[in-house]
Amino acid sequence: MPITVVGLDGDDTLWHNETRFNVTQGELRDLLRRHVPDADVDAYLAETEMKNLGMYGYGVKAFTLSMIETAIEVTGGKIPASDLEVILGWGKRMLMEPTELLEGVEATLLELGKRYDLLLITKGDLFDQESKLARSGLAGLFLGVEIVSEKNVDSYRRILERRGIQPEEFVMVGNSPRSDIAPVLELGARAVHIPYHLTWHHEHVPEESLPREGWYRIDSISELSRVLEKL
Amino acid sequence: MPITVVGLDGDDTLWHNETRFNVTQGELRDLLRRHVPDADVDAYLAETEMKNLGMYGYGVKAFTLSMIETAIEVTGGKIPASDLEVILGWGKRMLMEPTELLEGVEATLLELGKRYDLLLITKGDLFDQESKLARSGLAGLFLGVEIVSEKNVDSYRRILERRGIQPEEFVMVGNSPRSDIAPVLELGARAVHIPYHLTWHHEHVPEESLPREGWYRIDSISELSRVLEKL
Repeated sequence: MPITVVGLDGDDTLWHNETRFNVTQGELRDLLRRHVPDADVDAYLAETEMKNLGMYGYGVKAFTLSMIETAIEVTGGKIPASDLEVILGWGKRMLMEPTELLEGVEATLLELGKRYDLLLITKGDLFDQESKLARSGLAGLFLGVEIVSEKNVDSYRRILERRGIQPEEFVMVGNSPRSDIAPVLELGARAVHIPYHLTWHHEHVPEESLPREGWYRIDSISELSRVLEKL
Repeated sequence: MPITVVGLDGDDTLWHNETRFNVTQGELRDLLRRHVPDADVDAYLAETEMKNLGMYGYGVKAFTLSMIETAIEVTGGKIPASDLEVILGWGKRMLMEPTELLEGVEATLLELGKRYDLLLITKGDLFDQESKLARSGLAGLFLGVEIVSEKNVDSYRRILERRGIQPEEFVMVGNSPRSDIAPVLELGARAVHIPYHLTWHHEHVPEESLPREGWYRIDSISELSRVLEKL
């Protein structure tokens, strides 16, 4: 069955995301090491984020709350409130920054939009994702937008069913093997992996756990149109 | 045209919500007055929430971040980190509490579900709302769930269009004139207002700004079935 619908992930597929978290995490590291020079801030933050994931979900607000918690814990409660105010400010900065598109995104979507229905399928904080999409200037190119709290087999199945899309005519494009590739293949749809140079530890899946067939890997979204033609 | 689809708001329509924010806000008041006895904590928090609304959106995480900001500002940065950790804990408690249904909700939904398609239409934090719905035990009663970042004419129009529902066959039920009544009437659908004993200041709209017709007010969800029969 020929592909008729292309699902696209947002964060680190269409626009830079992890880079910003990384930059802010670096700032947190510097800030906390002024109080506790040998603190392993990255490990502590990662642990705090994982512990809070079931309560907070994904996104900048969750990250900010976990940074504040980490800062208090790592310093044994000695961090002054003024430093925590700085951390609050980092969160706000991340929420307000312009959405920075990856290279080739706009041209590719304009081109693909002529041949396929395009769906943005992204996970995370609803408000934050809608705001990023609005700031991206890309909203008009999508037939629909789906923001889910978790990308798994069930959430993809619900999206396809609700929109009357057969898995055989659907391909998902994204940077995360765990969120964009594995669950889609399990449904019998196809997938294209475009790695981003940074991956959040939570999104790692061992390569060998992915099926051998049904998915493709490209280096840049600019190659997407050519790959889809071959499907 | 007879009603075929009933949309129901979640917070303070199906389950208690504002009460919890109120309780936590009272705790914040007590905590901060130990540092600044004459501080007008409520006014400061309200102002902070409104200032942050365009960045944070609605929900417990946004509220927690605004409480922390308020605590730092009101105390002139003198609040110890251990007190801020207490505030973080309040946010987590709010996110983990069982969903407490209003009286009559379960019986009413079971009854209505036999005659109408039921949609949960709620605004706020995606993760938080999904989690509340899961904890409510009501998820199986809804044909669909729509979580939007803002309830306005556009978001209601999108929901009805996507689901192929005519405004004339739709009624929205909720506690907020601003979010559940006014935009729905503007679309030509009908609405039932069930006031909750507490309303967040942001949700107030002057009564006289609502149309005179097309909506009904009842005291309790237990009266809903009877009102809908008359539509």
